[in-house]
Amino acid sequence: MKKNRTVWSNRLSKGNSKNFQRIGSSINVDKRLYKEDILASIVHTHMLIKQKIIPKKDGLRIIKGLKKIEKEIDKNKFKFKEQFEDIHQNIEKRLFQIIGESAGFLHTARSRNDQVVTDFKIWVKHSTEDIIKFLDNLIRSILNKSENNINTVMPGFTHLKNAQPVSFAHYLLAYVEMLIRDKKRFLNNIILIDECPLGSAALAGTAFKIDRKFTAKKLGFKKPTNNSIDSVSDRDFAIDFLSAAATCAMHLSRLAEDFIIFNSEAFGFVEFRDKVLTGSSIMPQKKNPDPAELIRGRTAINYGNLNSMLTIMKGLPISYYKDLQDDKELVFDSYDTLKDSLLMAIELIQNLNTKKNNMKQMAQKGYTTATDFADFLSMKKKFPFRKGYYISSKLVNYAEKKKIRLDQLSKGEINKFVKVDIDIPKMFDVVNSMNSKTSFGGTSTKNVKKMIIKYRKDLK
Amino acid sequence: MKKNRTVWSNRLSKGNSKNFQRIGSSINVDKRLYKEDILASIVHTHMLIKQKIIPKKDGLRIIKGLKKIEKEIDKNKFKFKEQFEDIHQNIEKRLFQIIGESAGFLHTARSRNDQVVTDFKIWVKHSTEDIIKFLDNLIRSILNKSENNINTVMPGFTHLKNAQPVSFAHYLLAYVEMLIRDKKRFLNNIILIDECPLGSAALAGTAFKIDRKFTAKKLGFKKPTNNSIDSVSDRDFAIDFLSAAATCAMHLSRLAEDFIIFNSEAFGFVEFRDKVLTGSSIMPQKKNPDPAELIRGRTAINYGNLNSMLTIMKGLPISYYKDLQDDKELVFDSYDTLKDSLLMAIELIQNLNTKKNNMKQMAQKGYTTATDFADFLSMKKKFPFRKGYYISSKLVNYAEKKKIRLDQLSKGEINKFVKVDIDIPKMFDVVNSMNSKTSFGGTSTKNVKKMIIKYRKDLK
Amino acid sequence: MKKNRTVWSNRLSKGNSKNFQRIGSSINVDKRLYKEDILASIVHTHMLIKQKIIPKKDGLRIIKGLKKIEKEIDKNKFKFKEQFEDIHQNIEKRLFQIIGESAGFLHTARSRNDQVVTDFKIWVKHSTEDIIKFLDNLIRSILNKSENNINTVMPGFTHLKNAQPVSFAHYLLAYVEMLIRDKKRFLNNIILIDECPLGSAALAGTAFKIDRKFTAKKLGFKKPTNNSIDSVSDRDFAIDFLSAAATCAMHLSRLAEDFIIFNSEAFGFVEFRDKVLTGSSIMPQKKNPDPAELIRGRTAINYGNLNSMLTIMKGLPISYYKDLQDDKELVFDSYDTLKDSLLMAIELIQNLNTKKNNMKQMAQKGYTTATDFADFLSMKKKFPFRKGYYISSKLVNYAEKKKIRLDQLSKGEINKFVKVDIDIPKMFDVVNSMNSKTSFGGTSTKNVKKMIIKYRKDLK
Amino acid sequence: MKKNRTVWSNRLSKGNSKNFQRIGSSINVDKRLYKEDILASIVHTHMLIKQKIIPKKDGLRIIKGLKKIEKEIDKNKFKFKEQFEDIHQNIEKRLFQIIGESAGFLHTARSRNDQVVTDFKIWVKHSTEDIIKFLDNLIRSILNKSENNINTVMPGFTHLKNAQPVSFAHYLLAYVEMLIRDKKRFLNNIILIDECPLGSAALAGTAFKIDRKFTAKKLGFKKPTNNSIDSVSDRDFAIDFLSAAATCAMHLSRLAEDFIIFNSEAFGFVEFRDKVLTGSSIMPQKKNPDPAELIRGRTAINYGNLNSMLTIMKGLPISYYKDLQDDKELVFDSYDTLKDSLLMAIELIQNLNTKKNNMKQMAQKGYTTATDFADFLSMKKKFPFRKGYYISSKLVNYAEKKKIRLDQLSKGEINKFVKVDIDIPKMFDVVNSMNSKTSFGGTSTKNVKKMIIKYRKDLK
Repeated sequence: MKKNRTVWSNRLSKGNSKNFQRIGSSINVDKRLYKEDILASIVHTHMLIKQKIIPKKDGLRIIKGLKKIEKEIDKNKFKFKEQFEDIHQNIEKRLFQIIGESAGFLHTARSRNDQVVTDFKIWVKHSTEDIIKFLDNLIRSILNKSENNINTVMPGFTHLKNAQPVSFAHYLLAYVEMLIRDKKRFLNNIILIDECPLGSAALAGTAFKIDRKFTAKKLGFKKPTNNSIDSVSDRDFAIDFLSAAATCAMHLSRLAEDFIIFNSEAFGFVEFRDKVLTGSSIMPQKKNPDPAELIRGRTAINYGNLNSMLTIMKGLPISYYKDLQDDKELVFDSYDTLKDSLLMAIELIQNLNTKKNNMKQMAQKGYTTATDFADFLSMKKKFPFRKGYYISSKLVNYAEKKKIRLDQLSKGEINKFVKVDIDIPKMFDVVNSMNSKTSFGGTSTKNVKKMIIKYRKDLK
Repeated sequence: MKKNRTVWSNRLSKGNSKNFQRIGSSINVDKRLYKEDILASIVHTHMLIKQKIIPKKDGLRIIKGLKKIEKEIDKNKFKFKEQFEDIHQNIEKRLFQIIGESAGFLHTARSRNDQVVTDFKIWVKHSTEDIIKFLDNLIRSILNKSENNINTVMPGFTHLKNAQPVSFAHYLLAYVEMLIRDKKRFLNNIILIDECPLGSAALAGTAFKIDRKFTAKKLGFKKPTNNSIDSVSDRDFAIDFLSAAATCAMHLSRLAEDFIIFNSEAFGFVEFRDKVLTGSSIMPQKKNPDPAELIRGRTAINYGNLNSMLTIMKGLPISYYKDLQDDKELVFDSYDTLKDSLLMAIELIQNLNTKKNNMKQMAQKGYTTATDFADFLSMKKKFPFRKGYYISSKLVNYAEKKKIRLDQLSKGEINKFVKVDIDIPKMFDVVNSMNSKTSFGGTSTKNVKKMIIKYRKDLK
Repeated sequence: MKKNRTVWSNRLSKGNSKNFQRIGSSINVDKRLYKEDILASIVHTHMLIKQKIIPKKDGLRIIKGLKKIEKEIDKNKFKFKEQFEDIHQNIEKRLFQIIGESAGFLHTARSRNDQVVTDFKIWVKHSTEDIIKFLDNLIRSILNKSENNINTVMPGFTHLKNAQPVSFAHYLLAYVEMLIRDKKRFLNNIILIDECPLGSAALAGTAFKIDRKFTAKKLGFKKPTNNSIDSVSDRDFAIDFLSAAATCAMHLSRLAEDFIIFNSEAFGFVEFRDKVLTGSSIMPQKKNPDPAELIRGRTAINYGNLNSMLTIMKGLPISYYKDLQDDKELVFDSYDTLKDSLLMAIELIQNLNTKKNNMKQMAQKGYTTATDFADFLSMKKKFPFRKGYYISSKLVNYAEKKKIRLDQLSKGEINKFVKVDIDIPKMFDVVNSMNSKTSFGGTSTKNVKKMIIKYRKDLK
Repeated sequence: MKKNRTVWSNRLSKGNSKNFQRIGSSINVDKRLYKEDILASIVHTHMLIKQKIIPKKDGLRIIKGLKKIEKEIDKNKFKFKEQFEDIHQNIEKRLFQIIGESAGFLHTARSRNDQVVTDFKIWVKHSTEDIIKFLDNLIRSILNKSENNINTVMPGFTHLKNAQPVSFAHYLLAYVEMLIRDKKRFLNNIILIDECPLGSAALAGTAFKIDRKFTAKKLGFKKPTNNSIDSVSDRDFAIDFLSAAATCAMHLSRLAEDFIIFNSEAFGFVEFRDKVLTGSSIMPQKKNPDPAELIRGRTAINYGNLNSMLTIMKGLPISYYKDLQDDKELVFDSYDTLKDSLLMAIELIQNLNTKKNNMKQMAQKGYTTATDFADFLSMKKKFPFRKGYYISSKLVNYAEKKKIRLDQLSKGEINKFVKVDIDIPKMFDVVNSMNSKTSFGGTSTKNVKKMIIKYRKDLK
């Protein structure tokens, strides 16, 4: 075998064209898998020795050589070569340089087809665990911020129109619910990914007496995969990661959108510390919430990657095809993007100040307690809700015409619509309204406090 | 209240413009939820009675009226009206016609915001269970077809080039693995969806003393949702359904692609019965595998719907926005599309005949046992695999030049490359090769038989 | 031939399975093409007669029969049958019923493959022209609204933070620019689509002496397509339509988002008439801008359809495959969706009132004239812009700390930062600022007036 | 101003958090725009001098400094700094180092908002021109290959089933048609992009007396943009590029799919030279068409990028938002991906050999001349086509049952179905069939030759 050539250099007499060598090579992307690749090779070699498939002496030299290579890469002393196409050949070729012909025993009973999917699954599993940690940190930040805003009343919105008064903490906890679902989704992925493809070889399995349960266990998988063809064809785990990442990014984009709106001069609900803001090159006064906009915009990156991966897989005959090469770049990019978005979300939350007066003032606009009055008629006057609703809407029309708030109406004015004896300021008070929502999951401070305690407990 | 007007007709003095009434109305789509809507309303009313929030007498009239409406719709005697916008108002308006003012009690302590998401979640849950049944049927069909093809040898492909001999049953079982993962994904969704939003009202919860645990349980949910704002904003369950459907459709598209290729004149591996074929309007000889092409093409519909739903949600401020209206059409369409694709896949499998001779002949092309020879050198001569691989590739080059198969080489020819004593026909026999792959998950008939038994057991 | 069977019923002995017949049939979708299909058939028949390929007598009977069928469908008296799969076979079968065996001459020298793409191209061309008309109407509505708001000053935003004062008309005209680009895109599509595929037959062309230039011209195309295989494989024109629609929908979504934000209680820049608003089922006070939300949300439908079409085409071997069947549903849906969104945008604009005081007040917040001061220093003091910018930012910091506006600073205070002699109220006046932006394309009312005149002229 | 700080360091007292500085910085991506940025700055400065807005002396120093910076970057001697966020600030900051305070004049009458979109438009325009060159090269390669295959008969496919005999050249020219449409699409983009945004400043235009026509012309644009707000908000040109790239990639994916199928052992229509093939790490015999698979797979990358860009823009309020930052990475990636795919397509075509015997043999399978017989009955016996079609389908059934080809039928056998006097071998000969398709756009060699000449002429 020629030293500086691919393993198939005998079969394919000439090297690849310059363009194709550059384009076909994936080493710039998949070198990120070097630790997983070396780990899997070491475990594979241990198994080959244990099963007496290769001589122990050669096996041990392989393992030693692989560890040396890992250190070289760790220390940035490894020279990745494009002509060896990918991380697998780069390492095997270097192994030959270090330990000579013994290196030839390494690729027994395996193929790059099962090797790459094993490496990649290990990486995705660990990266999923990483994301879960970031999710926990974000939840923690939100809980801290919520704790200081249990009594902060703001208008809840539907259609971006003032709807009913809610607690800012309750609003923030809605995001905790989303993030908890994200965690569940990522945790489900870890269960789905938990089968080891190593030993499926090219696509048919192998005649060597390998022990796949051994390698599966040593690599942290629950068991080996059931079908060798499926093993090398399957990229569901990549889609699952990208899909959970897309949904999580979507949640963050909603938070970002809310913050961008709340941070506008018109809303003025929140402000952020300078360390998460940027200025303008022309407008001297500007303070822009760039991180929120990046979170929102980059959701599109997470979507696009999912879209690309699904498109790659659509109508692909089974088993391995080079189309699959780009799976790693897509997943790496979605991981990096989501991690950065989570980081920015954490910093935004930590650097956010609530402008409570503005929030409260805004909560009083838009007749946000009209529903409370309808409910009151239903409770106290035993009106059908639709009747109470109808009367309340007449009251709103009247107040709107007079350009006053509902709590500025006189008893006499109200009595023109319905005979009731109420404490007007209390009836239409936004804090009262908020605290009356004591149904499970409602926005009363009592509920909110309980939920924060519960979330904290679940986090531990 | 005016009879023929929306519930908000007092607040919004004039009806909507003709165009907007037509475009804004969702009744043509969401009438599909009528059973879920009526069920949720009945359960809600039971709870209101139980909690003494509304008079029992009125409550019972409501329930009776709702049941009457359900029958009307069942029998196609209900007149859906565009001006009442959606299924919820259509039913409430009809209820007024049937039972009069008592109908006004129905909408106590709820909003359309929590109502629609409750209806929709119930629908998605049941539809997910449906899909799982179709998946089981498809798995069953594949197992039946596999059972008859355990010994059918075909070339396994990578890069659509002949790779190694495999069993057609083993090939088919790769799809069983995919479908089992699909099942797991849909089952996970059922767990994720299992919280009932009813009682979250508009977005803040309610001051009425409702019993959300009661309604949750009666509607088949494990528990009520934790946060009222999240409850009316959340469409994760729709995305989860669309996402699992997209991945499942992708699996089917790969099967379809394989079948289209195998059904070509050039491959001639399979043929389908006429009942799943169509002809041409111009070419008298044609028999086209349209169902396979529909399955493959419609994967794009499942992808597009997922893409649309994610796009709708991106950057949407919480809580309810009319943007969410299209969630149902997307999910309904993905359900219908996937169900039809599963149906067609079942029919394709059931109407498929294998042309075993063609498969075997093709398995002998492309030097598919070259790896067996390399493995043999590794096992018997104790060569490093790379050395065996190298020698075997030389043999292939030689045979290719002579335009013969490996099993047509003479012992003398082989010995020019390496000294070995082998039974040449056996060494390069494709059935032998297939059966030698006894590693766990490999294609040996022994393995395949075991797996079929296991899959059957798991199905029950 | 059996009467109630497909044209290929001799070759494919049995009918399709019930499921496949239902799923494989496209008649529910493609019946929308009946006028195009009949037109193309009539033109085709004229050509066959002219070229003496079929007897004149039979040809004339065909034409008469087709016209009768068109009237039947017009009047809803045509019975579409699922078992005849599509509009083409439905019409051909009916033609046999009406005129007998002469109908057998119709399908000479053509195939459904070229027939369907011809019909579809005609439809897309006309629908593109339709969309352009709606675009013109929307532009007209915006110009009308702009005319009344040339002097309406509002804060221009970057990052949703107040940036610089601009004219509301100038803001609206930004959308006119987008819509003009949309028009150009659709007009380009009309040029790209202008080749007639009819006569390409199945995929190879035909041996009949047809006159494709004749049919192309009669059907309104510039010329016949150059390559028969490409002709039946090509769906670029569908992608081009979907792509232009997606971009146009995106523009509308931005307008919608702006309107939703401007319509919030916090911004209060605009309000809409009741006829484009809806209420809430629970909150008596609500007036929600549903049409804007529908426009925004349905952008996702336009995106999803483009995504689906691209996915269908990806990796599809040429020429015709049943995968293409769904092209029509996607294009029809995107056309309907975009048309409705344009309609709603027109109505929103027509029913929009500007709250000019709120806009002006908001324009004064956020130090929106800080750049004007920096520019002033650059112009009058000949400072490098960066120096002026720096001084102005110090002024902003100072004013912010004092919680006053820039125009509330005293000359003495300003002179602490830089020696200047200015008319303070004028310097920081938002209308002055707006009108100073006289650079081409800038927001000065002078510019805006000119542009409105120009746009009006271009419309005619 | 502090040396090592952003331009807004006075307004935003502290630097950004470490995380946000890293994540918010775009310099790693947008440094690719340095030539465009420097060019635009130089032209802007010339205009500022010409208009006497800045002192000539300072202006000339700026230009000299910028040219120096360009050389530094050319030679890889420029130190890009993350804390200066983007290419614009990096260059401005370096300019201060080189020429001192005169650098402060550069940013007069402009903002990064108009600057970045100007740079980007110039880049996209040039890159579009690049792509068109590659398209021309690919067309040229296909024409060369076609020229040698005018008489190469192969089965044309519909549904991957043998349909009718066609020329391999005719098949290849179908792709020329697609690529010509791609060219038109990219050329249309160049017209659409041809307006210069420079001078729109932040979003409002400027009070400086700038000459936008001058800068537009000098930067190669036809004219300045009409509306300053639209100018900084618009990314249509990016979408147009991504969209044209997606469609072009789709075309290439179809070619790739065809080649992968034709290169399979079963089809054996083509083979590629070793320089565009790769081997397997385990199977010694393998020769895989990786470039074709990369082309096919990476279509998904082009799709994903389009999808991401559309998603970024959806519902984005106008004018500039940081969401737009990722526009460049998406476009750069789509350009690189498409260019590489075009390169690989060119190499595949150039390294492709046709296996003409296999093609011809396959063309004779599947009764590909059955339509010719039906046409013959129509032409010579004056049967309605449907009658001829029916008889021909009976013939096919008969031959299929006997397991013979149509040209192996005896006259007597044919006469059982219809009385005709034909030269049987000629009637069913695939070359005859091919050459009979003389209709415009048909596959006869006569047509094909003409078309090649026409395409060559159009290329020049």
